[in-house]
Parts: sequence; structure tokens; C-alpha cells
Amino acid sequence: MADKEKRLVEEITPQEVDFAQWYTDIVLKAELVDYSTVKGFTVLRPYGYALWENMQKELDARFKETGHENVAMPMLIPESLLQKEKDHVVGFAPEVAWVTHGGSEELEERMCIRPTSETVFCDHFSNTLQTWRQLPMKYNQWCSVVRWEKTTRPFLRTREFWWQEGHTIHETAQEAIEETEQMLNLYANFCEKKLMIPVIKGQKTESEKFAGAVATYSIEAMMKDGKALQSATSHYFGDGFSKAFDVTFAGRDNLLQYPHQTSWGLSTRLIGAIIMAHGDDNGLIMPPAVAPVQVAIVPIATHKEGVVDKALEIKEKISAFCRAIVDVSDNSPGWKFSQYEMKGVPLRLEIGPKDIEQNQCVLVRRDNREKYFVPLDKLETEILRLLDELASELYSRALERMKEKTFVCTTLDEMIDTADRGFIKAMWCGEEECEDKLKEIAGLTSRNMPFEQEQIAEVCPVCGKPAKKMVYWAKAY
Amino acid sequence: MADKEKRLVEEITPQEVDFAQWYTDIVLKAELVDYSTVKGFTVLRPYGYALWENMQKELDARFKETGHENVAMPMLIPESLLQKEKDHVVGFAPEVAWVTHGGSEELEERMCIRPTSETVFCDHFSNTLQTWRQLPMKYNQWCSVVRWEKTTRPFLRTREFWWQEGHTIHETAQEAIEETEQMLNLYANFCEKKLMIPVIKGQKTESEKFAGAVATYSIEAMMKDGKALQSATSHYFGDGFSKAFDVTFAGRDNLLQYPHQTSWGLSTRLIGAIIMAHGDDNGLIMPPAVAPVQVAIVPIATHKEGVVDKALEIKEKISAFCRAIVDVSDNSPGWKFSQYEMKGVPLRLEIGPKDIEQNQCVLVRRDNREKYFVPLDKLETEILRLLDELASELYSRALERMKEKTFVCTTLDEMIDTADRGFIKAMWCGEEECEDKLKEIAGLTSRNMPFEQEQIAEVCPVCGKPAKKMVYWAKAY
Repeated sequence: MADKEKRLVEEITPQEVDFAQWYTDIVLKAELVDYSTVKGFTVLRPYGYALWENMQKELDARFKETGHENVAMPMLIPESLLQKEKDHVVGFAPEVAWVTHGGSEELEERMCIRPTSETVFCDHFSNTLQTWRQLPMKYNQWCSVVRWEKTTRPFLRTREFWWQEGHTIHETAQEAIEETEQMLNLYANFCEKKLMIPVIKGQKTESEKFAGAVATYSIEAMMKDGKALQSATSHYFGDGFSKAFDVTFAGRDNLLQYPHQTSWGLSTRLIGAIIMAHGDDNGLIMPPAVAPVQVAIVPIATHKEGVVDKALEIKEKISAFCRAIVDVSDNSPGWKFSQYEMKGVPLRLEIGPKDIEQNQCVLVRRDNREKYFVPLDKLETEILRLLDELASELYSRALERMKEKTFVCTTLDEMIDTADRGFIKAMWCGEEECEDKLKEIAGLTSRNMPFEQEQIAEVCPVCGKPAKKMVYWAKAY
Repeated sequence: MADKEKRLVEEITPQEVDFAQWYTDIVLKAELVDYSTVKGFTVLRPYGYALWENMQKELDARFKETGHENVAMPMLIPESLLQKEKDHVVGFAPEVAWVTHGGSEELEERMCIRPTSETVFCDHFSNTLQTWRQLPMKYNQWCSVVRWEKTTRPFLRTREFWWQEGHTIHETAQEAIEETEQMLNLYANFCEKKLMIPVIKGQKTESEKFAGAVATYSIEAMMKDGKALQSATSHYFGDGFSKAFDVTFAGRDNLLQYPHQTSWGLSTRLIGAIIMAHGDDNGLIMPPAVAPVQVAIVPIATHKEGVVDKALEIKEKISAFCRAIVDVSDNSPGWKFSQYEMKGVPLRLEIGPKDIEQNQCVLVRRDNREKYFVPLDKLETEILRLLDELASELYSRALERMKEKTFVCTTLDEMIDTADRGFIKAMWCGEEECEDKLKEIAGLTSRNMPFEQEQIAEVCPVCGKPAKKMVYWAKAY
């Protein structure tokens, strides 16, 4: 390995040595983000944004297929509007950014930058909803929101993050609950089939639910370091917000009624999950479905006649069915290999004078570095096959690891000992006190009460009282 | 006309009676926007947002084809960062929203919500740019920005608006200037070929240029009421921002240099132009390329067997090549006709029992209400042909009108008399004093100095001094 290439890889701290530092190295060196002069805010660089764009495209198509429409709401929320739903304001007011002046004038009422948009959606619903014939209203918005976090890390916790927030109102509770479930399933399917990250679906406990919700559902993923990452949430509000914001409609019986409401969101946080679920000591591994670049073409011996032309020709050809780039810079092939491994490009395509003679090229998989000599006229079949194989193996490995990192505990001591290792399945009495205690002494938080319940024991391992639910616990991002 | 339908149309104030009220009626009744409780902010409703999304899709593809990459920058700008470029801060500081508190704590330094993002882009460039090999950097961002306007109108002037802002840096001035021109041409082409709105390309005068720019170029469109609307701008910055933000790179000669910079933007304001360039007393007329719905299918006599099924079948079939909806609600056909005319859907497709017998349907063009009986097996050809014809006639009519509303003036009195009627082509001495005077006494502002110059007279009609440039003047939105 030439010095330069060695340095590139050496600059990445190994996961075993310091996982947090590995993460930071990756997000910066793979050029996903840049720190900004604005404290706690990050810049999404082209490579990071392209990943988010591919995720958006996939999700947006699914939202539209399921009958949702995109809208755009004001980014500022007057304080009085934020205060209308009492649980909601308690949850969010401590972490919002307040606008107090417009130009040189002080505002009569200060406004916060949206930390989430239930309040402005409700305001709009109350303006426009009149009859049951208009229901359901199923809206989504792509935007960024601001929450004034104390400590921040790229993607995982930043003062501004990019997300989508769905907001719907329905004629009946049943319909709204079905919507909540549908969107949770949509998220889970997206994570598992496109990002190749297995998730646990379940309901949040009372203390972990969204401020103002009747019920919050989440999908939880397991990272390589044994910590969990909440990957998306879906909330059922009942008619609480409707009542607080006076959203009403004339029902089929002509009587005034309150609609039932949901919201659901998925954010750039999930990029953190992609990094920590798949990445290794050489860098990122991008799931092919959302990879900004699926095939990086590296010509070998570019000074030899015809090599660069052939590489460009191949790029042109394969761009019909995959996202490809060709690197004709004067960096060495070894440097380029390391570079595209770091960036997690699923396949590398090498083409040199000897390959050209034999009308073939070399394909190298990012995850296991396996090499394949492929005739140029079979490129389409082989590239698509290898992308598929890589994707499904990413999922298998992540699933295998999640299983390895899932533990069943029946005593508090076991839970404390296992706290750093992954998911802990344990019974729970339903009391917030026991959650608080686990957080305090072991750093464990309840991730969710999975839909697939098991009867592990009769009692809560913390207090010994009769158990009501099995809960997934973990240290979490 | 049934009462209900009559009411719908009567609710739209005729353009001749009150153009401003006509505009307000349209944006609300066509459900493009909703006013918000947040003063000066609007809600983009599904129909309005879908229009913006179609515009985005067209533009984004063109940006990418010309080598630009999307990124996302922080929405907040610390005051010290805003102040670095002295002309820029003078231009924008009076109209920004200031964030002073994060949660319950007062910030050490207040920050504004971006009114535009030159400053944060420069901050990022200065962090990441090292060598000429990285140049050009050609970035774009889709986002909303906030400017604290005193009086607001949907799309035309709102405290928050949605836009794209391109920001690029280049090795040489020449390259940057070419970029500025390329993007102005891209905008003009988009307006003329997709929105069917003819525009005047030219350079802004010193007093109208962007705060901090060396030169600002614009495209200007003519509305039906004789007022102009600036439809997009493209700025050349020279190395002014680079110097202010210490953005440097090692050049080919290994010496430290400042890159040359551009920015360019197009916003939801342009939706105002679509409305006012094409709309009539029956409502909107959407240019087919960006129309959220291109064909609205209205079944006639829905109680007759097979009609609704046939309408649904046609919708399914034509959705392969156009954006179609079918309205099977129990509103009357007449009501639906008025509704889709108001919303500006380019084509209406009527299908009733007699049509089904004859295996045909009726297509009605929104702009001139011409009817076409079309055999069902010729739908694809006919729909595409009629959409094309409608589009090119929209453009012809807009071009014709712009010509009719363009006047040549050689005296101040003529300019004053003509001020309400449209574009005024007149010579200008180049002095800001004369611009100020025209604004004060006639409400005229310089739109731009068109690239296609003519020698109308020898002297400036305001001061009588030798003329330097021909300028397009108008009252403007």
C-alpha cells in the first residue's frame, strides 16, 4: 500500500478503538457533512445531501401512493399557538429557538422556529375543515426544524435537522389509528427493504411518547456498538389537538365533531443509522437503493492509449441502469480504491489495458472485497446481480448482529451487566419509577413495547411487581 | 347556468373591475394558499405545492444537467457572519428575523434566519476549499427564507418564501461570468418553454442590484395589468465575498488566490407570474408542463350504468402519459366544470352515456373552451396535441400582450402618461438621481438594461444629459 493510501485509511479510527471517533471520522472524511461556524448546526455536503435526496425520493413516492399530499407550512409559530395544547408546549418550549425581532422592531409576540408543526397544521385545519366530505386530509411536509440541543453530533443530534412530517386528520378514531399503523409499517418496510436495516416495531411507554400524543409508535434499530437508534415515529393524537385548536367538522349526522389526528416523521438522523449499522473500518457501506454512487469506475494505467476512453464509454453505457461515476483524476488507483471504499460505494469497476484486450473488467464488492471478472457484454446483469446480493447480505448481517446483540434478562443485575451490549428484552410493571431507576443506574431507556410480545417472566425485574409488558431496553442515541 | 355554478364564478372579481382583488380571489378559491395565523406568512396548500413541486422537478433536472449539486446549509446566520460583507449587511439587516433565545437562555450572539445564504456558503467554502483542483464548486439549495416585509401578498411578497439559491465559486472571473449568464439563460428558457411566459433578459442598474454583487442580471415578465414582475435573478460577485470571508485556494501557480463567485435564485414568487400572465375571469390557466392536473375527467349522468366505470377506466389509461384525475363526487357536472376552470386545469374530459355508445368522449380546452369529439382510441395523440397547442398559444398570447404593453418613450411626460400601461423602453443617463425621480413622480422603477439594446434617443428623458443605456421601466410587483 502506498503511503498516501495508507494514510487515508489510517486516518479512520478503528471501530474497536473508539466507535464515537470512528463515526466522526467517517462523516467528515466521506464528506457527508461539514461542521459549521453556527454552533450545533451542520452543513449537508453534496454526498450527504444526495443520500438524503435518494431517501426522500423513495419515501415521497410511497407517501403519494398511499394518498398523501405535500404542503408547506410557516416555519414560525407564535407563542400563543404553541401554548394551545398544554402537554405539547411543556414538551417543546424548553428547546425552541425564539424570534423576538423583525428587522429593527421588537415583535408584539415572540415566535419560535418550528420544532415540529402540529400547531400550525391544526391552525390550518381549523381554517379549512368544514364537512366530513373533506376528510381525511392527509398531508406531508419536507422541511428542516430547530431544537436547541445542548450537545450535538452530526445527523444524530443537531440543532437543525431535515425531515418529513406527516399530519393527517380523519373522521373516526379507527381510521386515524389505521393511518398511524400504516405509516409505521411503511417506515419499517423502507428501513428493511431499502436501507437494509432490521427494526423492532412497537409502542413507546408513556414517559417516552411524543408531547401531546395519545400513543407513539416507533421503529428501533441496533447499531454496531450495541446502542439503539430510534429510526422513525408515528403518533396517534385522538382528538386532543382538535379540541385545543377548535378543529371541527359537520359529520354525516350534521352534528359538529372533532376529527382524529396523526403525525409521523423520519429525519436525517436515519443517516446516522445507515452509517453505524453497515460501516466498517474502511469507511461507509451504502445500501445500493439509496447510494449516491452505485458504481465507481477506476481506470488502471490511464496513460495507456484507450483506457480513459473505454472507462468513459462504460460509464455512459451503465448509466442507463445504475448511478455511476468515472474517476479520471491523476490520483493513483490505490488512492481511488481507498477513497471509494471510504465513501461506501457498493461496487468498484476496474478497467485496464489487459482487461480491454480480453473485453472484460473487474467488479469489486465494497462489503467483502470479492472480485469478479466480468465480460463487458454482461455488465448489466452482473452489476444488478451484485448490487442485489450486496444489499441482501447487508440485511442478513445486520439482522444476524441484531439477534446476537439481543439479550433476555430477568433480573436487575443482569440488566445492569448487559446494558452496554445491545437490546435487552425484559418485563416491565408499567411504572415510570422503574424506567427512571433503570436510566439512572444503568443508562437504559425503554425503546418500545414491541408488537410481538413474549412472556419472559412474571414480574418486573426492577420492582418485583407483576409485569404487564415486555419492553426492549437499550442505551440509545 | 345553475345557481351554484353562477355563484362560484361570481365570487371571482373580474380583472377589469379590480385586478388585485381578482388575484386574491384566485389564490384562495383555487386553493393554492391559505392565509395563516402567523402574520405575513402563507400556507402552500396541496394544489399550490404540487405546482411548485413540478416547477422544482423541471428546474432541478436542469441544474443537475449543468453540473450543479444540491446541499443544505444552516438556516441561522450569526450576526457577525452577516456583517462580514459590508454592502450585504446594509442591504439585508433591516429586514431579517432575529433569534435571541435558545430555549430559556439568551444567546451570546443573536442570529438571523437566512434572508439568503451567501454568508453561510462562503463560510463553508472557506472551510473546505484548498486547491484549484476542487474548482468549480457548483452548489444549489432548495429551502425557504425569511424577510420581514411590511406589506405582504400571497406569492408576490411574503415574510417567508420558498426558493432555490445557487452558489458557485470558480477559478477565474471569466468562468464565473459565464456561469451567471448560463443560469440566467436557463431561467429564461424555463419561463418561456415551460411556463409559457416571455421574459426580458438584462442587467439591473447599480441601485437595483443585489446587496454585495458586482452585477445582477434579471428576467422580467409583463403581467396582464401592465405591471412587471422580476422572475429570477443571477448575480456575479467578483471576489468581494471571497475576500470578506477569506475564501482562498492554491492556484495552478501554487500562489494563494480568491475564487470568483456567483449566486442565482428563483422563488415561489414566479407562481404569481403564472397566475397574472395567463389567468382570466374564470380563474387560473395552468401551463401544461407544470400543471398539477393536466386532464380533469368529468363523468356525465353518473347514475347511468357504466359511466363511472368508464371514467375510471379512462383515467387509468391516460395516466400513463398525463396527470389526470376523475371527479366522481355528487356535485353537478356544471359545478365541476366551473371548479376545474377556476383551478386552471388545461383540459376537461367529459364522458356520458351517449359518448360511451359512440366510443368517444369530449375534450374541452381551458383557455378558449373549444370542444373536440375524440374517439377513445385516439386519446393519447389528441390529449398530447391539445396540451401542446394550448401551451404554445398561451405563449403566443402572452408574447403578443407583452408587445402591446411595451411602449417607447422619449420624454418625461410620455413616461408619466404611460406609467400604468406596461413596459416603457427609454434611454437613461446612468444616474441614480433620474431613477429616484421617476420612482417618485411616476412610480416607475428600472427593470433592467436589456441585453438587446436599441438607440431610441440621444438623451435621458429625465435630465436631458447624454444617454448611456436603454432601460426597461415599469411599475412592478
